[in-house]
Amino acid sequence: MTQPKAVVLLSGGLDSSTVLYGAKAQGYQLFALSFDYQQRHQRELQAARAIAHQAGVTEHRVIQFDLRQWGGSALTGETAIPQDRPLAVMGEGIPVTYVPARNTIFLAFALAYAEATGAGTVLLGAHIQDYSGYPDCRPDYLAAMGEVYRLGTKVGREGQPIQLIAPLIQLSKREIIQLGDRHGVPWALTYSCYQGRELACGRCDSCLLRQQAFQDLGREDPIAYDTPS
Amino acid sequence: MTQPKAVVLLSGGLDSSTVLYGAKAQGYQLFALSFDYQQRHQRELQAARAIAHQAGVTEHRVIQFDLRQWGGSALTGETAIPQDRPLAVMGEGIPVTYVPARNTIFLAFALAYAEATGAGTVLLGAHIQDYSGYPDCRPDYLAAMGEVYRLGTKVGREGQPIQLIAPLIQLSKREIIQLGDRHGVPWALTYSCYQGRELACGRCDSCLLRQQAFQDLGREDPIAYDTPS
Repeated sequence: MTQPKAVVLLSGGLDSSTVLYGAKAQGYQLFALSFDYQQRHQRELQAARAIAHQAGVTEHRVIQFDLRQWGGSALTGETAIPQDRPLAVMGEGIPVTYVPARNTIFLAFALAYAEATGAGTVLLGAHIQDYSGYPDCRPDYLAAMGEVYRLGTKVGREGQPIQLIAPLIQLSKREIIQLGDRHGVPWALTYSCYQGRELACGRCDSCLLRQQAFQDLGREDPIAYDTPS
Repeated sequence: MTQPKAVVLLSGGLDSSTVLYGAKAQGYQLFALSFDYQQRHQRELQAARAIAHQAGVTEHRVIQFDLRQWGGSALTGETAIPQDRPLAVMGEGIPVTYVPARNTIFLAFALAYAEATGAGTVLLGAHIQDYSGYPDCRPDYLAAMGEVYRLGTKVGREGQPIQLIAPLIQLSKREIIQLGDRHGVPWALTYSCYQGRELACGRCDSCLLRQQAFQDLGREDPIAYDTPS
């Protein structure tokens, strides 16, 4: 039997790395896809490359385009990244780190990549903590995108739609770490910080959520931080 | 009252130019969006720039990315563009000029651009002749993408979804030319050829459909062709 192929959206953070290693454990041939959209935190691309290499993917593509040109987000513009926000506050409303239609763009490229390489599955690391804030991580959005996958491609029209799956959607960050542990995710290679400096800041929402999750499990986050955590 | 803003996907061909001039006639403030995806026919970008300028758009963005890297289409790869196909044959199946998920990528960027600039409408020149062949021009696909527009953005979640409209969907090429005439589309600036040489080839599906439409109206296509038509 032919090995099934999957396209995995890989940012280099905890979630997408867990998805990649989970897909590896399930026996998929792996096609990793990352994006250089002139985001502030291009450091994450280094992490994505290291993890893709470590996981032994068949191919890792990095698509380049520039989302700075129209701004609209703290991740691509000059707006400051919020620091030291309490976890309870993070869940309120849509954060300034929201990038207009970013996941729609990512998932569109993933669909193209999957169709061109003959992959039947696209895997995305969206999960329950994300969709408190980001509109394009929520289940109803992902279902709508699944319809676009079904109707918008040659393979879908011919009866073999590419499946869009978010395997972590119901998990908390803590549960994701536990799952990643089982699949041997090399946490020390991951990078989550929104600031994008060589060392993670330890103060943005992304760093704080990550540190909290490791702490809840009674463990230390193995990456180095710029500030003592 | 504030002038409403629209993002118009502008390829430089007959259809998208008609949409642009139609939107101008309706009083929209115009934001044109084109793509340099390393397509064979980059000549069309020259046409798009000329038409955007002529129409007096507020802004014309050209997004660059490379779809050649995974191939999958005669428009981005080495596969030959079919020549001299009878019009009846063109309607059968999905053509080799289909680019995997191209419209999904275009519409994803258009959504981002609309949200970032505060445009309430995205206009696309898909029409009835396209959707005989291309899956991502058909009404059911566009409806699914409309749901993605509604659910995948901050503005959509907050109650002001960006509308995706394909105003030409029910029109034939001939009717599009008649509509464009009423809005003063400068046909001589448009470019439709898949080959992408300075002069249109007159033999690819796109040239043939265009020439046929002008001919049906008892008129001459005002652009120059490489071969006598």
